[in-house]
Amino acid sequence: MRVDGRSSNQLRNVKIETDYLLHPEGSVLISVGDTKVICTASIEERVPPFMRGEGKGWITAEYSMLPRATGTRNIRESSKGKVSGRTMEIQRLIGRALRSVVNLDAIGERTVWVDCDVIQADGGTRTASITGAFVAVAIALNKLKVEKNLPELPILDFLAATSVGILENEGVILDLNYAEDSTAMVDMNIVMTGAGEFVELQGTGEEATFTVSQLQEMLAVSDEGLKKLMDIQRAALGEIATFIKSEAGSNIQ
Amino acid sequence: MRVDGRSSNQLRNVKIETDYLLHPEGSVLISVGDTKVICTASIEERVPPFMRGEGKGWITAEYSMLPRATGTRNIRESSKGKVSGRTMEIQRLIGRALRSVVNLDAIGERTVWVDCDVIQADGGTRTASITGAFVAVAIALNKLKVEKNLPELPILDFLAATSVGILENEGVILDLNYAEDSTAMVDMNIVMTGAGEFVELQGTGEEATFTVSQLQEMLAVSDEGLKKLMDIQRAALGEIATFIKSEAGSNIQ
Amino acid sequence: MRVDGRSSNQLRNVKIETDYLLHPEGSVLISVGDTKVICTASIEERVPPFMRGEGKGWITAEYSMLPRATGTRNIRESSKGKVSGRTMEIQRLIGRALRSVVNLDAIGERTVWVDCDVIQADGGTRTASITGAFVAVAIALNKLKVEKNLPELPILDFLAATSVGILENEGVILDLNYAEDSTAMVDMNIVMTGAGEFVELQGTGEEATFTVSQLQEMLAVSDEGLKKLMDIQRAALGEIATFIKSEAGSNIQ
Amino acid sequence: MRVDGRSSNQLRNVKIETDYLLHPEGSVLISVGDTKVICTASIEERVPPFMRGEGKGWITAEYSMLPRATGTRNIRESSKGKVSGRTMEIQRLIGRALRSVVNLDAIGERTVWVDCDVIQADGGTRTASITGAFVAVAIALNKLKVEKNLPELPILDFLAATSVGILENEGVILDLNYAEDSTAMVDMNIVMTGAGEFVELQGTGEEATFTVSQLQEMLAVSDEGLKKLMDIQRAALGEIATFIKSEAGSNIQ
Amino acid sequence: MRVDGRSSNQLRNVKIETDYLLHPEGSVLISVGDTKVICTASIEERVPPFMRGEGKGWITAEYSMLPRATGTRNIRESSKGKVSGRTMEIQRLIGRALRSVVNLDAIGERTVWVDCDVIQADGGTRTASITGAFVAVAIALNKLKVEKNLPELPILDFLAATSVGILENEGVILDLNYAEDSTAMVDMNIVMTGAGEFVELQGTGEEATFTVSQLQEMLAVSDEGLKKLMDIQRAALGEIATFIKSEAGSNIQ
Amino acid sequence: MRVDGRSSNQLRNVKIETDYLLHPEGSVLISVGDTKVICTASIEERVPPFMRGEGKGWITAEYSMLPRATGTRNIRESSKGKVSGRTMEIQRLIGRALRSVVNLDAIGERTVWVDCDVIQADGGTRTASITGAFVAVAIALNKLKVEKNLPELPILDFLAATSVGILENEGVILDLNYAEDSTAMVDMNIVMTGAGEFVELQGTGEEATFTVSQLQEMLAVSDEGLKKLMDIQRAALGEIATFIKSEAGSNIQ
Repeated sequence: MRVDGRSSNQLRNVKIETDYLLHPEGSVLISVGDTKVICTASIEERVPPFMRGEGKGWITAEYSMLPRATGTRNIRESSKGKVSGRTMEIQRLIGRALRSVVNLDAIGERTVWVDCDVIQADGGTRTASITGAFVAVAIALNKLKVEKNLPELPILDFLAATSVGILENEGVILDLNYAEDSTAMVDMNIVMTGAGEFVELQGTGEEATFTVSQLQEMLAVSDEGLKKLMDIQRAALGEIATFIKSEAGSNIQ
Repeated sequence: MRVDGRSSNQLRNVKIETDYLLHPEGSVLISVGDTKVICTASIEERVPPFMRGEGKGWITAEYSMLPRATGTRNIRESSKGKVSGRTMEIQRLIGRALRSVVNLDAIGERTVWVDCDVIQADGGTRTASITGAFVAVAIALNKLKVEKNLPELPILDFLAATSVGILENEGVILDLNYAEDSTAMVDMNIVMTGAGEFVELQGTGEEATFTVSQLQEMLAVSDEGLKKLMDIQRAALGEIATFIKSEAGSNIQ
Repeated sequence: MRVDGRSSNQLRNVKIETDYLLHPEGSVLISVGDTKVICTASIEERVPPFMRGEGKGWITAEYSMLPRATGTRNIRESSKGKVSGRTMEIQRLIGRALRSVVNLDAIGERTVWVDCDVIQADGGTRTASITGAFVAVAIALNKLKVEKNLPELPILDFLAATSVGILENEGVILDLNYAEDSTAMVDMNIVMTGAGEFVELQGTGEEATFTVSQLQEMLAVSDEGLKKLMDIQRAALGEIATFIKSEAGSNIQ
Repeated sequence: MRVDGRSSNQLRNVKIETDYLLHPEGSVLISVGDTKVICTASIEERVPPFMRGEGKGWITAEYSMLPRATGTRNIRESSKGKVSGRTMEIQRLIGRALRSVVNLDAIGERTVWVDCDVIQADGGTRTASITGAFVAVAIALNKLKVEKNLPELPILDFLAATSVGILENEGVILDLNYAEDSTAMVDMNIVMTGAGEFVELQGTGEEATFTVSQLQEMLAVSDEGLKKLMDIQRAALGEIATFIKSEAGSNIQ
Repeated sequence: MRVDGRSSNQLRNVKIETDYLLHPEGSVLISVGDTKVICTASIEERVPPFMRGEGKGWITAEYSMLPRATGTRNIRESSKGKVSGRTMEIQRLIGRALRSVVNLDAIGERTVWVDCDVIQADGGTRTASITGAFVAVAIALNKLKVEKNLPELPILDFLAATSVGILENEGVILDLNYAEDSTAMVDMNIVMTGAGEFVELQGTGEEATFTVSQLQEMLAVSDEGLKKLMDIQRAALGEIATFIKSEAGSNIQ
Repeated sequence: MRVDGRSSNQLRNVKIETDYLLHPEGSVLISVGDTKVICTASIEERVPPFMRGEGKGWITAEYSMLPRATGTRNIRESSKGKVSGRTMEIQRLIGRALRSVVNLDAIGERTVWVDCDVIQADGGTRTASITGAFVAVAIALNKLKVEKNLPELPILDFLAATSVGILENEGVILDLNYAEDSTAMVDMNIVMTGAGEFVELQGTGEEATFTVSQLQEMLAVSDEGLKKLMDIQRAALGEIATFIKSEAGSNIQ
């Protein structure tokens, strides 16, 4: 029995509110339990220097937390004058994950800037960011498709992320909240496509280790949760969702 | 006739949603037209080094904007590794303004951290921040009063802020939105107490100048607007508002 | 009676030494009592990126203090690796003020760099900087007029700045020195043109507030002081002063 | 057939030279093919502030590359004034991995600083760093055991790391060199204990995805490679290796 | 014949104005030709962490230039957010030089902060800084002697610095101005005590080299110049100069 | 008698291992006693902005130490976010020294990046860096000569560096190790060409001074040592050494 009464393979209550902000090309407020993240997608009409002239697009992501997203106030990274290792790791993960399902060749020399700003944190902020950012990117790219008359939505498949973990007493559980995450022996983040294939798999023994069979149990539990998250994404996207084919096989490129 | 149909002395639609976030001692989401700011107040059980041992409290404020709060994406100050002059100026103003109506002697050696995070910007973000932050601070200090059994709410008076400006065709107008602010010849921010006294007055001719009589016209218009803002604060605070006396005379200390 | 024996509406002794340095296009050493600031104006043959191609000039200001300009040594901002909020606020103010009286269209795509370096501080460094910088800029622009054969001196009016404040016992006083500034309840900086119009008005209650009638009293006192400062500027500029027309009406552009 | 003639499940030539440097408590030069990393372990007689008073030790790791470790010269991170996201990610990984096999309770309030400096890079620098750093830490902790008369070597198990990946033509391969890594569709780093349990698993589809069965194939291949790496570690450590028990079951703490 | 008409072994016109600023314990304005430096000495009642508890004092120096000290405006190091290599080299030199003639044991656990701010530059700013700073330090330490009743002035000898160089046509010359310095093939800075001993000798071939006999010629020329500089220091210090014994032999400690 | 048994004018054991690394155009590992430095020379096909269009090359040097090159671990400069004054001083020295013996006109618009990374320190790291870097640069430029068909090796003469010092009991000694350097009263670094001319001379009294006759004694001792270092360089360079003419007279340009 989990702290908040969920069963071991149960997601928290997930809501995705689209067009949350006025200015960005795509924006959502995603809530995964008490974790709330504003995800926006902005389209810039150029690519970073290292990509110029290749006729290809790029996606880059930034992640941040409001100082009081958490129980104790955090010092702003702008005040410290540098971005923490944790933030860098998360924003690299978000960008990499999204690039795997966007047809970068089809968007031309443009950059999609993804901003994930956590306004309230209760565990799973990086996976909520990916799940929400996918929807924001889809909305922004659909706008681009319409405006620039692209032949099709340049998205190859759905993309969602969740966490699984192992707690001493509860065993393998899905979608850890902060209290669970703090005591987990093993913590794994999984990013998956609509076709059920992995984009990222990051499992970490927190001063502990895990076996192959525990890995398999975690993957099974996450699989279910990710499918439900994609249903919620599909509902939030409405008609746009119908433009995304997810029958894609392994090693999409 | 103004771009959004308001009369010259009319505020935009203002909403203050209290207890917007779970973790901070005080938090609100304030909307002034399309400008939206999350204001939180966090209480820390210590003061900055230069104040230790004086038995007195402190209030410090930080201000930031989400990258896509605006029409074009701004680079994060954490990525740039430094806080801009504009941000510093605003957060110094917010802190100074709030300190003028809080009884710092009565809160003991504690720091109230005020965080104003603009999630959507349409002009007037600094004045919306002050108006919203006042409510967040009142909620947080009321919580402190209850928990620490303080004899009374350590707030001396209401505090709100707004802008007035002069446009070439419209003349003196209240509460400028972004479109108006961009073309204003004169721009003035006024921070006032419930007793109708000034805390801050910052008038700037934008490559222009203004006369004494124009100053007086601007002050008259802002006075009305600030009284309405305090009514909205009072409504948002509910019972807590009744603990704030605003009959205070000049030069409260 | 004030600490240094002045009457309430009396300026300190003001001296402006022109052509103080060899290299800059314009330079002065301004002394306002014991406050001493080296103000230089440098002309660079280009404008910042955001202004290129508009055929217009720009003025930007920087402000700094020697470490021992003050009673206690301050750590250099170059050693700290960042510029303080106070410095940024001041240099933004100086730049904005000067831009309001310079005909930016008439100077072409050039930047006037204004540097105000306080070598000795006794209160009022930002207003002394503005008053001195105006003279340095006038000298530099006169040199530009001669060299580039401009039809007239691209300065629209005189510009000076001073402070007024309210002390508990002294009431409203003009041109506060450091001792007065430290105990002032209200502190106001006023930047005015030769035509008697405001360019900037920044009034702050230091953990206190002020009324409309106190504001008016402060404005009256400052008005007198600013006229005297402009007489001193006129004397320092000599013939150049005769090229500046100050009959300009409100909202010069 | 691989670029360097290896079979798909073959490691590169691995050498671990112990006591490579004079000053550190533990040091090795590890070569994995042309990848060469100097790994040192330094023992400091205190822990970071957040751990003081808990009677427990800590391990922290730093990673860097010489500018010409690579084919093209990289700008030093000290010159750029900040550490890249990639570096932060790697050093966090190294630290986390080592902490999982060291008995932090047994080393007292001490920090083991691990420094991995890549002097020559040909792919797999992070996994070579972990494999080499384990040996350096074992040597340093054995020195501590002797000097401080610890009852036993505070190391719970062996620890090694390697990479596996999927190439378009080669399929699943072990221990990718730089040429292979640059064209890999999937790249996975695996950190494992002597007991054959996972400490970290980081699989990434590089603008591609992978299936459960591909995951299993990769894990099988890496398992073999990791066992060989531990044999090389054992040989390098000599007598010290005999103090490390690796029969430890799942979820060691 | 030199650009400014001096003979090869002639110093520029040197003036040292003492007590130039109000606040510092010691301050001078030194002019060496058109090079002008404000040198101040501030006494702080503590030493840096690495020296605490040794009962000994410390001297540390900082050096900076106003942006328009030079013909072209330099960007402030505070704006760049870092101190240049040239600045660091100079301030390390100034500190080291002064420490060699101050009896650090006799000043107790205090730091003498030396600030050299170049307000106008025409070559030789580092040597002018040392020569001027010596006088500022002597004044500050004499004040300390009086206030703290030290048995004697804690200064072991005079200290002055100058430059010598080799120009293609002029040969060896003393006290190079900027025009000379820019074309010099060899440039040497010499810091010497009243006893005629070296404290620092820094000779550099600027894309050139020099022989032992050229070295000797340069040392002979500088010797004369340094003696004259010390006469000027003696005159500036007045009575304080009589407390400095300069008969000290080699390797004073 | 010295701590390590050497006579006063005896170098430590010096070894130069060429082509130490795979990727750089030139690389050596130089050992001077226990001091070990990896020196690399990288050729970049462009020059810094201030030199573009002059048809001339440039040499720039960077210097760093591994954290545990020394007895106590040093914090990385990349972690501190800035390069220390000592590092800057050393890398400026190395670059300047090498530029004096390279024919910059003959290498075209290219930059030679010199990187000196100290992996083990026992005094004399800056002089070992120069001595080793010269060899790395010669190898790299010889490669350039071959590839670009340059008429001759663009090196004007040999270049080596060493230190001399004065110890209280030992008197003048050559090539100080760390223990000697820490107690030296005078420390001098000398950079010399094959023709026996000075490129740099940096003598410092460490809270002490030195006389002209002590200077001469130090120069005599260093002269011998430098000649031996150049023999070792010649042997390491093999055939390449024969392309370097060292009969060059004074003031080569």
